[in-house]
Amino acid sequence: MQVGLIGLGKMGYNLALNLMDHGHQVVANDVNKDQVQNIAEAGAQPAYSLDELVNQLEQPRTVWVMVPAGDITDQVIDQLKSVLDEGDRVIDGGNSNYKDSLRHTESLKEKGIYFFDVGTSGGTDGARHGGNYMIGGDQEQFKQIEPLFKDTAVENGYLYTGKNGSGHFLKMVHNGIEYGMMQAIAEGFEILEKSPFDYDYEAVAKVWNNGSVIRSWLIELMENAFSKDSSLESIRGVMNSSGEGKWTVESAIEFEMAAPVIAMSLMMRYRSQEDDTFSGKVVAALRNEFGGHEVVKK
Amino acid sequence: MQVGLIGLGKMGYNLALNLMDHGHQVVANDVNKDQVQNIAEAGAQPAYSLDELVNQLEQPRTVWVMVPAGDITDQVIDQLKSVLDEGDRVIDGGNSNYKDSLRHTESLKEKGIYFFDVGTSGGTDGARHGGNYMIGGDQEQFKQIEPLFKDTAVENGYLYTGKNGSGHFLKMVHNGIEYGMMQAIAEGFEILEKSPFDYDYEAVAKVWNNGSVIRSWLIELMENAFSKDSSLESIRGVMNSSGEGKWTVESAIEFEMAAPVIAMSLMMRYRSQEDDTFSGKVVAALRNEFGGHEVVKK
Amino acid sequence: MQVGLIGLGKMGYNLALNLMDHGHQVVANDVNKDQVQNIAEAGAQPAYSLDELVNQLEQPRTVWVMVPAGDITDQVIDQLKSVLDEGDRVIDGGNSNYKDSLRHTESLKEKGIYFFDVGTSGGTDGARHGGNYMIGGDQEQFKQIEPLFKDTAVENGYLYTGKNGSGHFLKMVHNGIEYGMMQAIAEGFEILEKSPFDYDYEAVAKVWNNGSVIRSWLIELMENAFSKDSSLESIRGVMNSSGEGKWTVESAIEFEMAAPVIAMSLMMRYRSQEDDTFSGKVVAALRNEFGGHEVVKK
Amino acid sequence: MQVGLIGLGKMGYNLALNLMDHGHQVVANDVNKDQVQNIAEAGAQPAYSLDELVNQLEQPRTVWVMVPAGDITDQVIDQLKSVLDEGDRVIDGGNSNYKDSLRHTESLKEKGIYFFDVGTSGGTDGARHGGNYMIGGDQEQFKQIEPLFKDTAVENGYLYTGKNGSGHFLKMVHNGIEYGMMQAIAEGFEILEKSPFDYDYEAVAKVWNNGSVIRSWLIELMENAFSKDSSLESIRGVMNSSGEGKWTVESAIEFEMAAPVIAMSLMMRYRSQEDDTFSGKVVAALRNEFGGHEVVKK
Repeated sequence: MQVGLIGLGKMGYNLALNLMDHGHQVVANDVNKDQVQNIAEAGAQPAYSLDELVNQLEQPRTVWVMVPAGDITDQVIDQLKSVLDEGDRVIDGGNSNYKDSLRHTESLKEKGIYFFDVGTSGGTDGARHGGNYMIGGDQEQFKQIEPLFKDTAVENGYLYTGKNGSGHFLKMVHNGIEYGMMQAIAEGFEILEKSPFDYDYEAVAKVWNNGSVIRSWLIELMENAFSKDSSLESIRGVMNSSGEGKWTVESAIEFEMAAPVIAMSLMMRYRSQEDDTFSGKVVAALRNEFGGHEVVKK
Repeated sequence: MQVGLIGLGKMGYNLALNLMDHGHQVVANDVNKDQVQNIAEAGAQPAYSLDELVNQLEQPRTVWVMVPAGDITDQVIDQLKSVLDEGDRVIDGGNSNYKDSLRHTESLKEKGIYFFDVGTSGGTDGARHGGNYMIGGDQEQFKQIEPLFKDTAVENGYLYTGKNGSGHFLKMVHNGIEYGMMQAIAEGFEILEKSPFDYDYEAVAKVWNNGSVIRSWLIELMENAFSKDSSLESIRGVMNSSGEGKWTVESAIEFEMAAPVIAMSLMMRYRSQEDDTFSGKVVAALRNEFGGHEVVKK
Repeated sequence: MQVGLIGLGKMGYNLALNLMDHGHQVVANDVNKDQVQNIAEAGAQPAYSLDELVNQLEQPRTVWVMVPAGDITDQVIDQLKSVLDEGDRVIDGGNSNYKDSLRHTESLKEKGIYFFDVGTSGGTDGARHGGNYMIGGDQEQFKQIEPLFKDTAVENGYLYTGKNGSGHFLKMVHNGIEYGMMQAIAEGFEILEKSPFDYDYEAVAKVWNNGSVIRSWLIELMENAFSKDSSLESIRGVMNSSGEGKWTVESAIEFEMAAPVIAMSLMMRYRSQEDDTFSGKVVAALRNEFGGHEVVKK
Repeated sequence: MQVGLIGLGKMGYNLALNLMDHGHQVVANDVNKDQVQNIAEAGAQPAYSLDELVNQLEQPRTVWVMVPAGDITDQVIDQLKSVLDEGDRVIDGGNSNYKDSLRHTESLKEKGIYFFDVGTSGGTDGARHGGNYMIGGDQEQFKQIEPLFKDTAVENGYLYTGKNGSGHFLKMVHNGIEYGMMQAIAEGFEILEKSPFDYDYEAVAKVWNNGSVIRSWLIELMENAFSKDSSLESIRGVMNSSGEGKWTVESAIEFEMAAPVIAMSLMMRYRSQEDDTFSGKVVAALRNEFGGHEVVKK
């Protein structure tokens, strides 16, 4: 089927190729004209503006947005609202906060435009060769656009998750789990590193991937990583984060439930971004006050 | 090759079958005579005592112990020490604490007996159809008995990990990671359950298993679990534990490192085993004292 | 000086008495007419409506609001905005979220009304005999009303904290610290309770209060609590919470910093409010799937 | 009464002065001869060896040991066992692990020597002017030596806690609570530091100490600390630790209970001692593998 695609970054560009591989007709737009040109050479119809994009699509139009979450997604959706018509559909395939998606749903509904909040996992390789989708939105409308997801996902790699918001919420929780799993794996390797034994981490990851309880794609990735740098000597342990882990913890707190593992995995990321902490200074100062314990001077 | 096997419980019995499938000759012993009889009918040589077992094995003998960790393993290894001869080998395939294994190594070395601490993962199904081994011990001797592991593991599912202790230590850390991964997954599903959305958990586990970043055997198992009880209504959330998670946290503390996610996953298990807590009472009493906040009476 | 007081609950009623003890003239209002009558008998000028209250105060008026945080505070402040005049002052002495206080500041500024966000600590006894105030707002205006705080606080028990929001923010953090301190004390007593020793908890609290590093008002309160119920047998360990602990953790996450102790103290409160957890069920189900470990049936 | 004192470090020297202030006769020993000389000039009877110490004391002798916990305490107590007689008493006033104290109890009992495990709090100032003692040991014997504790403690600052081990165990838990309280305070100040407000931390500590719920000696100490260095600019946030926090967490794990706040306060200390972590590298490497996220190169 015909689909407009906005955003030709790492994810969007690969998705365009994936869609075309499966016979879909892609009308592609990006703020970067070169990327539009590139994808046009690969078979897409170029659109150098939203107007061009809209004009090339037959009604009801389907526009898949693959741009950074937050302000940029907000702007693109606002602009789409002004140029699309009743019955058209907007897919947000980015990592938007589900509360933003609920807002986008309401806003587009004012003009009769359907919104789908689609959590996308699998990374850039997934976008190209078989991704993973969690899709919230109107169920009847979903059936109309289901081929887009079915064709570009791995087998069984997409799910209609219910009303709007449920797609991005599920992706958020997926990433929260990911944070916890990653930190668990990371702590395990650090215990190995501090142990009196001398492990070959790549071999450890490999054996854990063949028949053990924790076999997983993340452990596969660690095998890859250790194959390139056997003790990760070239990098620093700074753990950055985008928003989903934070939102997951915020949701847990909002629902007044305990999620200590996901919370700690988030907080250890924040801790890793600091060279020194004020809390550490306070404890050091207190120990000095009551026990005369030495402090480390700057 | 010929191997003695002590312990015909869920793991040992399946391992015996697995060994025989691959042409190994198994001399099998268990305190339960019926289990010995059963495995004899499946093709093993029965041994109703350790003496019988030892007498049926050619030197240098190899004896694989698959009994519960702790006291029972201690006793079996002590008994083996008295009946085995120099050059024989003892494999501990149970979930022993690596510090016990270091002790067993020293004890058996006094008689010139080789010890292997073999962490075994993959569950009962793995024992039967392809397990996962992490093997610490003498490297030259390991080569002599490698076929036992190679033949009964999944492909690439065994690893010689170095000197004694390193096999059980690695298995311990594997299980510590498992604790953290499980708690992360569990918290994620609880957030879904408390959300304003209405998810089909089995479908969620399925889609996460097809192309997402967190795809893993544990998520596969959740798909199975939810297929039998869609919202786990029949069970209580009591999380028991055997020793490895605890030992992993003890090791982290011994090494003076932060392992917050594994520590919290352990502590939430302990918390789940209590109906009420004294710490909760203390906080409730304090709130009542300073703010007149209501307490919940028994 | 003359001051209007809205809210004659546990805190407000005691504050009225405290203010009058120090020679201030209190015009008191509450939705509960009986409480207005009671405080009138104690010497206050009754005001059965906001109009009555406003009419009895000379300009520039000072109105101290002591009502529950959230919607009720919002409503009262909205109503005050409509009846007060330029140059008047509103004090919010409740436990409002500082973001609400920033909003109230802006709203009242539209009419030239000054707002003070005053975090109040010390409990009901403090309100009566010497409280504790953290005061955000205009510094020049603060000097005009400083006697109200100075006279009703314990010595050195009030602080001008800077621009609007800083008073309620500081009180929020104070309570976050309180959560962490309380949970630390609570965990300590639970370790004592689970130990092989047989402690007299009241005596323990008493000795800790006389010369030890952790001597504190909270430990004094525990001495009181144990003097009434030596092992807290009559109560359940359900730890409720109002908003400040939650907001503190939300702030830490917003500032992208690690606050694991305050976060865990909050989450253990939430955990204590549940009889069973979905996360616990997920872990139990997983253990059953891979290891055949028994689950606890309902 | 007459008492032998071994160990004239910061704590022991002050204790000797304190004992003498209250009319006790101190026979003092230390490996450092100069310290023995110094205390002799202050009025103590010098003892340059354990034999000298023992010979100067009338039977039944009481020997108070104030030396570093662990190996040194072990050695001193072993030596005392060989020179003391039946009916004599040994007080260990150091921060020994209660399991060591149980061992010392059994060892000394072989010769009929009574052992007291005495947890001491209050710091060096407490040792000089009024300390805090938690005392485990034989109750009848305790009564014989009670004046030593009563006279050198602050009022109500000593407690007989029951059988041997209970004194050092209680001190251990006291310190565990201390860890949690310190980390809670520290996180609170870090939130203030990261806030949009501009607080005077010394003034904050002061106001919190006058009438607020968290008033405590620790907050007093923070007031002192901030009075010397208003934003702790001169020090690094490295939080060292001696053993009690670690032992408290080990005990919690041994008792299979959740103590998340004390555990996290310990782990954040360990984290503060590292410039970089292997766990951080693992997470950074994973993020790079699946999402192409930038790593920070060394």
